[in-house]
Amino acid sequence: MRTLDGVGSTPRSGVGTARWYRPEADLTLPDRPAPESVDVDTELARYESARDAVREALREARDRTAERVGEEEAAVFEAHEGFLDDPTIIEDVEAAIRDGTPAPHAVADRFGEAVAQFEGMEGRMAERADDLRDVRDRLLRALLGADGGEGGQAVTDLAALPDGTVLLAERLTPSDTATLDPDAVAGIATIEGGRTSHAAIIARSLAIPAVVGVGAELDSVADGETVLVDGEAGKVVVDPDEDLRAAAREAGPEAIRDRVETIDGRSVEVATNVGGEAELAPAAERGADGIGLFRTEFLFVDREAPPTEDEQYEAVTAALSAFSDDRVVVRTLDVGGDKPVPYLDLPDEPNPFLGRRGIRLSLDEHADLFETQLRALLRAAATEDGDGLAVMFPLVTRVEEVERAVARVEAVADDLTSEGVDHAVPELGAMVETPAAAFLADALAERLDFLSVGTNDLAQYVMAADRGNDAVADYHDPLHPAVLRALDRTTAAVEGTDAWVGMCGEMAGDPALTELLVGLGFDELSMSAVTVPDVKRRVREVDADAARSLAADALACETRSEVLDVLGLDDRAA
Amino acid sequence: MRTLDGVGSTPRSGVGTARWYRPEADLTLPDRPAPESVDVDTELARYESARDAVREALREARDRTAERVGEEEAAVFEAHEGFLDDPTIIEDVEAAIRDGTPAPHAVADRFGEAVAQFEGMEGRMAERADDLRDVRDRLLRALLGADGGEGGQAVTDLAALPDGTVLLAERLTPSDTATLDPDAVAGIATIEGGRTSHAAIIARSLAIPAVVGVGAELDSVADGETVLVDGEAGKVVVDPDEDLRAAAREAGPEAIRDRVETIDGRSVEVATNVGGEAELAPAAERGADGIGLFRTEFLFVDREAPPTEDEQYEAVTAALSAFSDDRVVVRTLDVGGDKPVPYLDLPDEPNPFLGRRGIRLSLDEHADLFETQLRALLRAAATEDGDGLAVMFPLVTRVEEVERAVARVEAVADDLTSEGVDHAVPELGAMVETPAAAFLADALAERLDFLSVGTNDLAQYVMAADRGNDAVADYHDPLHPAVLRALDRTTAAVEGTDAWVGMCGEMAGDPALTELLVGLGFDELSMSAVTVPDVKRRVREVDADAARSLAADALACETRSEVLDVLGLDDRAA
Repeated sequence: MRTLDGVGSTPRSGVGTARWYRPEADLTLPDRPAPESVDVDTELARYESARDAVREALREARDRTAERVGEEEAAVFEAHEGFLDDPTIIEDVEAAIRDGTPAPHAVADRFGEAVAQFEGMEGRMAERADDLRDVRDRLLRALLGADGGEGGQAVTDLAALPDGTVLLAERLTPSDTATLDPDAVAGIATIEGGRTSHAAIIARSLAIPAVVGVGAELDSVADGETVLVDGEAGKVVVDPDEDLRAAAREAGPEAIRDRVETIDGRSVEVATNVGGEAELAPAAERGADGIGLFRTEFLFVDREAPPTEDEQYEAVTAALSAFSDDRVVVRTLDVGGDKPVPYLDLPDEPNPFLGRRGIRLSLDEHADLFETQLRALLRAAATEDGDGLAVMFPLVTRVEEVERAVARVEAVADDLTSEGVDHAVPELGAMVETPAAAFLADALAERLDFLSVGTNDLAQYVMAADRGNDAVADYHDPLHPAVLRALDRTTAAVEGTDAWVGMCGEMAGDPALTELLVGLGFDELSMSAVTVPDVKRRVREVDADAARSLAADALACETRSEVLDVLGLDDRAA
Repeated sequence: MRTLDGVGSTPRSGVGTARWYRPEADLTLPDRPAPESVDVDTELARYESARDAVREALREARDRTAERVGEEEAAVFEAHEGFLDDPTIIEDVEAAIRDGTPAPHAVADRFGEAVAQFEGMEGRMAERADDLRDVRDRLLRALLGADGGEGGQAVTDLAALPDGTVLLAERLTPSDTATLDPDAVAGIATIEGGRTSHAAIIARSLAIPAVVGVGAELDSVADGETVLVDGEAGKVVVDPDEDLRAAAREAGPEAIRDRVETIDGRSVEVATNVGGEAELAPAAERGADGIGLFRTEFLFVDREAPPTEDEQYEAVTAALSAFSDDRVVVRTLDVGGDKPVPYLDLPDEPNPFLGRRGIRLSLDEHADLFETQLRALLRAAATEDGDGLAVMFPLVTRVEEVERAVARVEAVADDLTSEGVDHAVPELGAMVETPAAAFLADALAERLDFLSVGTNDLAQYVMAADRGNDAVADYHDPLHPAVLRALDRTTAAVEGTDAWVGMCGEMAGDPALTELLVGLGFDELSMSAVTVPDVKRRVREVDADAARSLAADALACETRSEVLDVLGLDDRAA
């Protein structure tokens, strides 16, 4: 048994079998030919088709990450696409090819320079080097036919690692990390990397135990050795003794099937966010107390016309029967902003996040789609498991919108009655994801059964910082005091009304914040399924009175670093 | 004496000499020639150069309106430019020309259809017909050489009307209205039009008495008759008797030189927003108690390099000597968002209003410009009139930003000391124009001498509605309860501290809202110079206790229409 020190990145422990991931080995360039022997047109075409292939792969990675991890993390792949389409880089590579450099060498040269430039910068900019390296390696793999391509130099398939793998690497890219199956990977340890890299953030969202920045000693670990990754202490233990293994296993993410409550008996519902039918069974297995956010966009994308009423009815009843004893909160169609759907003919706006989105479209331009969706939902509410159904409206900023939406529900109910179709009116609620909704939470709670806070958008508007824009990434952290005060404004307004208040933003899934959120008064927390067991475990350790006092201390803070101090999270990245 | 009824649009009275504006008369098309006699290439070229000329004119109108009226009103001209560049319209016009239609006829036909389409729609969309008509008429004037062009059919020069003109028209376009000189025009009366049209909004911002929708009877008024426009009662009185004339004159906008206070003795500073040196003298003449917002962007735009320290020093000292006994609040450079400056190399962002703007740029990318500006400001603070100087930072969302900005001020002061340059540290403040700043107002007030609310941006972020996007125009009204609650959060947090709190957004210049703003606790209101006399007059009528109770009633409202009821402004447009 020997111990290596690093930086704890995901605060969990896991034990498993070491397996090195060395993608660099596959990217050895062939010898550089004489310029006159290079066929410029062929190389230009190869470069072009490699870019197309990588663009497609990035979009897939984006979608997969959005679904499994979250929209915010997925945005990194849009930045990657930006590098791929950077006009200066494209021009330089093409110029080099025209001068007789084969495409792979031109890519390696030009991207190598850009990586070096970013590495020379400070802070967040330096971390962009990882992203650029990711794009370069993807291009080289496409050009060299690696990655199972025609060149045949297949690399490790990260999506299909055997159960109980501890993945070792010099560094992981964000897309490497997003590809990992959290059920198979027991831990990650890397030679390089910091807690704030995109890859580390994605690993945390996937709840994979991780230690980064271990240094060159990690090379001493061989494939096949048993390794414990302790992301809390920042240690990698090779060949751990049975006590340590047992402790790591105990701290593992076994599902807690029962509802949980705090030490002093306050019950907190720990639900899950679902973005597609394939996620229903895994979410139930991890012990989620229902669905706190059922996104309906998956029914509308990647097709040429909107789904029918029956298709939507089927999808919602499937969710209801997967969680037959629980609540299933369905969000009505939330497009616009960064979620384009070609056939919906959304306007091209200078600031789409401040434009036609969410309930605004449903009440006007897309009133027809809204009606169809409400019909499907009201019919589903009358089925055997339908009493668990709840419906919520996205991007509410005005009480009038809620009044109009409720009136639409009533009109649809009247239509179904006169058609003789079975239906019921489910619980109705609103997302609190704009400052306006936070300021009006009392009025919304009076008219609705529940409110659910979406922290990603709320932080974006409170801080005036696009959550997809890396240049303002420092601004859209929910631990900024202004965002906490907006949360408090919401929960305080709901207290004493009959409505319940939940949170379905990414903040809800971080066990390090569970005590704070309980203290702020949330009745329900909804998150990616992978973090449900950890948050349930954490709820059981919380004392509600202590949590309230912690929340009061956090609300009195004036800067984010004071908040981190209060929460004991001093080195946390934004 | 006879009286015509219409809809009061700007609630003021004015009396003067009637003058009809009939721009349509100049746009008579020549007879349509036979298609085979039309030189297609020449006509296409004419059309292209007319579009270029109109585009330039629209940009000038935009800039003039932004400076004289406000950024929000100026945005209409961007919408106009959108019509000018609409690919469908362009294609249709070009196709018609290729089929042998001369350019003016092709424009008249195609735009005529589009105008008719918009007229057939409801509500706000119908009002877009006015805008489209404006673009069409501009194109036709450019094509026909009207408007003083080579065709010589000069139309009325709206910018140079004689003093005391009451302008009569079938309807006015937004650009017609923005061209008017509020010192020369005693009133406006139109046959068509509603209170919510862009033209009516611009007239209100310019404080020109206006009655719209009078109907065809207005035709009975002849050029040269004496006419009274009563925008409060919605009446046009032809040949009014001496009593009425005297009453209208009394209610006129004479400057009040003294500071004003409420009936019960609460003093309210009524200051002005200034966007260029030419506005200093007129602002002083209208009795402004100082400058509440001195925009510095005019020093940076329309040039190829940033202004020197000395240029900035000169501009600031000019403002200080124009208001030598008063406070002059200078806002540090506020670019980004919708204010591009080519040589500053601002990033192209998917949501610029949620990106790198204001203080964010000054603390990082443009730290050098910030330092130069602070040097100029600290030197100006040490001049004879410099003790009135105050400096404020735009788009603050974090206490840390204020701490860094204050540290920069101190570092610049140290530099100037060691260089032996005369300087002083002025009052320092922050704009409250993000929800974050409203939630942190207590912490900001602790560290600064004052806060000043920018309602345009604040409403935009609270309501998640781009203030330049017409499709969400209904959302960015400051009378939405959520925005009022954000204002209250700000003023309540400042109460009891040593800091003062002002407002420099467009809301501050509306006399109908003065009582509300006094009741919310604002110590200073800063506005376009034209509305200073009206607001001063209004302050003198307010009872501070009644105002507080009015504000409490408004804050308890849950919808905008309830707020309008409370304020007695039932038919007001958003």
